[in-house]
Amino acid sequence: MGATRQAEDGARPARRRLSVDRRREELIAAALELFSRHDAEDVSIDDVALSAGASRALVYHYFGGKQELYVAALRSAAEELEARLQPQGGGRPMEELARGLRRYFDFVEEHAAGFAALLRGGPANRAGEIGEIVDGVRRRMLHLIMNEMRVTDPGPVLRTTLRSWIASVETAGLDWLEHRDMERAELERLLVEQMAALLRVAAGHDDEVERLARTLLDG
Amino acid sequence: MGATRQAEDGARPARRRLSVDRRREELIAAALELFSRHDAEDVSIDDVALSAGASRALVYHYFGGKQELYVAALRSAAEELEARLQPQGGGRPMEELARGLRRYFDFVEEHAAGFAALLRGGPANRAGEIGEIVDGVRRRMLHLIMNEMRVTDPGPVLRTTLRSWIASVETAGLDWLEHRDMERAELERLLVEQMAALLRVAAGHDDEVERLARTLLDG
Repeated sequence: MGATRQAEDGARPARRRLSVDRRREELIAAALELFSRHDAEDVSIDDVALSAGASRALVYHYFGGKQELYVAALRSAAEELEARLQPQGGGRPMEELARGLRRYFDFVEEHAAGFAALLRGGPANRAGEIGEIVDGVRRRMLHLIMNEMRVTDPGPVLRTTLRSWIASVETAGLDWLEHRDMERAELERLLVEQMAALLRVAAGHDDEVERLARTLLDG
Repeated sequence: MGATRQAEDGARPARRRLSVDRRREELIAAALELFSRHDAEDVSIDDVALSAGASRALVYHYFGGKQELYVAALRSAAEELEARLQPQGGGRPMEELARGLRRYFDFVEEHAAGFAALLRGGPANRAGEIGEIVDGVRRRMLHLIMNEMRVTDPGPVLRTTLRSWIASVETAGLDWLEHRDMERAELERLLVEQMAALLRVAAGHDDEVERLARTLLDG
């Protein structure tokens, strides 16, 4: 009896929750689409409502305002990027890196305006959720690369090398969006070669990296 | 007679302006000192007033609020950094780069908390003055390096390589402030070697960089 009641109590909110979640996701998807193609300042709550076939009031109901909607869209974009960067397995680490980089640039290209707007400049709201989401993506990229290289506890030389390379990739993505005067495939090759070159430089400063570089690059 | 009058008119405002400017600079210097050692959220207008021996009202009079004061302090820090990065002349380009890097890290160390807080994460206020100041510093660093290398109109491969290296230096600075588990001098050597390695990689993609790399690295 108690169990039945509990099941009933649980079932109804769950059904309602599902449709609430779906509506919310539709709004986030519409927002992400707009924020990907335009500077955030040029996207209004009305644009999002129109694009999702919802009322302005509904968007406010779910998100409270544009900042929350932007943060939700950014979080959803970060999850999408991380899902795409999961290794497909099977290749050698440097091959996996090249494939991951191709998927990273697919993402950059699809979300061009939003990516550029987000990463240009420095953070004004330094304690904000936006900075945390961006940092979270960088941290998880670092861990994906470390996993692929079978490194669990990198020393300072390897850690700063990998973080620097991730920053290089971000900057190269921004530069490419600004100029588009280079083939994407060539830029991707350049960045993979940069990783190899940076590992060789790091190998001269740290024995552990020296062994790793041998396995990754000469094996 | 007209000229005398003009001179008098001009002289008085100039005297007053000088002391206004000096007071304003003192407030900025006090603010920069505090923003360099603490997260911006932990610095109040009262702290700045106290540190500069001024009244809270005077700070508001000159700056209107904390955001304007922060922007003014950041602009002053950017000018200071750029002044320090001016080449002292005399050395070969890669030696000048190493010296510039040392002065960059002097600056990073002196402004530790402010530097870390500024560059962590992504910009929330993307159209904001803060992002523009940060981007301006990066742009001027790019031009300083190009001048040193006697490059005026870099192709895409060199441009993205140099911008990526600047991003690497920034990230390495942040990483070093977070961990401090590496000698600064060693990190600086690592970054100079990274530049050389990145130029060699770029040389494989672009004939112009190939000639440049030969001059810079083997000459």
